[in-house]
Amino acid sequence: MPYVNIKITNEGATKEQKRLLIEGVTNLLKDVLNKNPLTTVVVIDEVETDNWGIGGESITERRKRGE
Amino acid sequence: MPYVNIKITNEGATKEQKRLLIEGVTNLLKDVLNKNPLTTVVVIDEVETDNWGIGGESITERRKRGE
Amino acid sequence: MPYVNIKITNEGATKEQKRLLIEGVTNLLKDVLNKNPLTTVVVIDEVETDNWGIGGESITERRKRGE
Amino acid sequence: MPYVNIKITNEGATKEQKRLLIEGVTNLLKDVLNKNPLTTVVVIDEVETDNWGIGGESITERRKRGE
Amino acid sequence: MPYVNIKITNEGATKEQKRLLIEGVTNLLKDVLNKNPLTTVVVIDEVETDNWGIGGESITERRKRGE
Amino acid sequence: MPYVNIKITNEGATKEQKRLLIEGVTNLLKDVLNKNPLTTVVVIDEVETDNWGIGGESITERRKRGE
Repeated sequence: MPYVNIKITNEGATKEQKRLLIEGVTNLLKDVLNKNPLTTVVVIDEVETDNWGIGGESITERRKRGE
Repeated sequence: MPYVNIKITNEGATKEQKRLLIEGVTNLLKDVLNKNPLTTVVVIDEVETDNWGIGGESITERRKRGE
Repeated sequence: MPYVNIKITNEGATKEQKRLLIEGVTNLLKDVLNKNPLTTVVVIDEVETDNWGIGGESITERRKRGE
Repeated sequence: MPYVNIKITNEGATKEQKRLLIEGVTNLLKDVLNKNPLTTVVVIDEVETDNWGIGGESITERRKRGE
Repeated sequence: MPYVNIKITNEGATKEQKRLLIEGVTNLLKDVLNKNPLTTVVVIDEVETDNWGIGGESITERRKRGE
Repeated sequence: MPYVNIKITNEGATKEQKRLLIEGVTNLLKDVLNKNPLTTVVVIDEVETDNWGIGGESITERRKRGE
């Protein structure tokens, strides 16, 4: 019954990519800890680049510099 | 001063239903642990069905099958 | 399939009180939003009073003043 | 490598104000705990006032009363 | 720069198993979304079985019944 | 009424340092967004170095290499 929260910036992850994240994390927990996939919950949060900071500045600012 | 975070899928919970969740959780913490309602904080997150997985697949996929 | 996280200070909640929180929140989500109790997940975090702040000071400091 | 999550109500924080929060929290962790700013992550969540409760009612209701 | 939080019950995951979770999630985010592993953060929370509920009861109670 | 969660590795932050984090974040939210300090909540989580990963490996492994 694990619960996994994945936070990424909101920069165009597709429905298929999100499906792959859900499937991949669920399989990982089964493979490593033998957790039952039926009760593994995965929640993906897509965060605006203005609202995500690293190194003291927002991702929006970093993207402007081409990073 | 408890903090409660409720995550549900974004499938049309009304303002009134969210009010009932806030009121209900606040009362529960008062009844069970005698927590002061004035400082109990409740935050509700409504998550897109593409972004919520259980059993290795998204809620969107499950809803398509009528689950 | 809701996910609920309850954070309280670590001040002696009993196993029975935690059981009542789990049961109460699960029932609330069934009553208000018709959520299936079988897949409602509740996680309780008990946080040291040194690590919880409100009003700019820790709960430890407030408890010393009898609050 | 600290991770900080700031939740505020969605009531018009500007890009500049969010930049100041990211910068301020990152500096605070450097000043107090000597944490490397390059790996400090800050995520800001802006929550609808219907979805934030305190004192058993939503912020929307409180705002209506002028609080 | 994704941030991933994995919550599991505190039932003896080894240092090596936790290492595999960290490595596996980091690789998954690289493979699916091309996220830079150097800035992917993973935090694992191990939660007491009294503090984790599903189906309205704690994991402690379920374990007693052999589930 | 902001809610702030600070996650750091469990490597000996003192009671005084945690007090300074609580005070500093609360003041920051007042200065930047004019948030009332009386209802600003700060929760600090101290995470074991085995349970925190960055760059695909745990902090425990990095500390062994002197990082």
